[in-house]
Amino acid sequence: MTVTEDDFLGGRLRITQPAMGFRAGVDAVLLAAACPATSGARVLELGCGVGTALLCVGTRVPALHLTGVEVQPEYADLARQNAAANGLPATIVTADLAALPADLRQMQFDCVLMNPPYYDRARSTAADDAGRDRALAGARMEDWIATAARRLAPRGQLTLIQRITSLPEVLAATQGKLGSISILPLAARTGRTPELFLMRATKGGRADFRLLAARIMHSGAHHTQGADYTDEIEGVLRRGDALDWR
Amino acid sequence: MTVTEDDFLGGRLRITQPAMGFRAGVDAVLLAAACPATSGARVLELGCGVGTALLCVGTRVPALHLTGVEVQPEYADLARQNAAANGLPATIVTADLAALPADLRQMQFDCVLMNPPYYDRARSTAADDAGRDRALAGARMEDWIATAARRLAPRGQLTLIQRITSLPEVLAATQGKLGSISILPLAARTGRTPELFLMRATKGGRADFRLLAARIMHSGAHHTQGADYTDEIEGVLRRGDALDWR
Repeated sequence: MTVTEDDFLGGRLRITQPAMGFRAGVDAVLLAAACPATSGARVLELGCGVGTALLCVGTRVPALHLTGVEVQPEYADLARQNAAANGLPATIVTADLAALPADLRQMQFDCVLMNPPYYDRARSTAADDAGRDRALAGARMEDWIATAARRLAPRGQLTLIQRITSLPEVLAATQGKLGSISILPLAARTGRTPELFLMRATKGGRADFRLLAARIMHSGAHHTQGADYTDEIEGVLRRGDALDWR
Repeated sequence: MTVTEDDFLGGRLRITQPAMGFRAGVDAVLLAAACPATSGARVLELGCGVGTALLCVGTRVPALHLTGVEVQPEYADLARQNAAANGLPATIVTADLAALPADLRQMQFDCVLMNPPYYDRARSTAADDAGRDRALAGARMEDWIATAARRLAPRGQLTLIQRITSLPEVLAATQGKLGSISILPLAARTGRTPELFLMRATKGGRADFRLLAARIMHSGAHHTQGADYTDEIEGVLRRGDALDWR
């Protein structure tokens, strides 16, 4: 397997990942930046891939207990290597979401994070999405959210990132399992329709649903040379800032 | 019953409604402005109250076939009077959503609109919401949306307005019944969390879910004397403009 080494968080985190197939990027960093874990918390990532989001959280917040679940052995192996290479102790479990090992089913977590694979037959190609397709085969959105809900401690929080097109499915799957749901839409530019969203939901939460004002990713009205991230997003991606959840 | 007469759409529509109990206002006008009915269309409002939203659509778009369903006889009577007084032919059916008369169950509509009563025990008072509470007793959100879906012709569209706190419930109820769902959040001011949303959904629609950029109701950063509506909302409320759905 050909791999690449990629810098995240301005070089504070270095991730080895397959050159082909699903590659971690901005989504993973945003997901990690939205996770409300505080020092000492138990954090679980479902479908952790090569560990990018989990290790981003571990880089930002000290002394976390990090656990990742990944069904594909080659990705799980890379996640273990990435944790070790970055000096971040993490337990990576090679398992299907629908059949977690007994010891993991005994554990509870303060935070669960996930970026369930989004399968869009019309747009994906086998080469781009082979890893994602395989991951999806084992579980649907409601299985992902039900599994997260079961593993959360009381008042524990799920953080999730998805394409906006999945919002109805995600909210339907969350109904009755988690509460105090809030959605942060992510739009490429001011006035654009958001393409992604982050969700936070709390086990046993009873607060009203909230839709936050869309967060803008890029400054300027049009695509220009370079990434032109807004200051806030630049801080998240390059300096490892938390995303301000308001 | 003490009634008031209120001007809508800059005086183009005059509505008689009870002085106490649920009173039609900005929500009804926004709902009507978001309805995509074109000349000659068959339009049904479920829970039409005194007919405000239905008659706002009828004022904006010529030659509609207007039908309203209202469970409370005193509101239905006022809806009939309001239709006649404004020169807008409309059939108002006094019926419970869950038990529509047989002839209505044979009909199909190009557009259905509704503003299902939102019951918030923590905030409502008997005096304010007596009418709404009674309306709610007969039906839950999924009944409202299922009834709308059954009455829509193929490619017909549901338009709905609700508090943002109901978004998860509304999307869950819409799943599998209507497609091509799009949500337009309505925020009081720039940067504020939206408090209301409009939804459009199509019978048999297969387009991706879309969350549109939030529409701003008031200009300026703070509440000032007067309503200070944005130009677009002023056009909807005072000049009877359609709401631009983008």
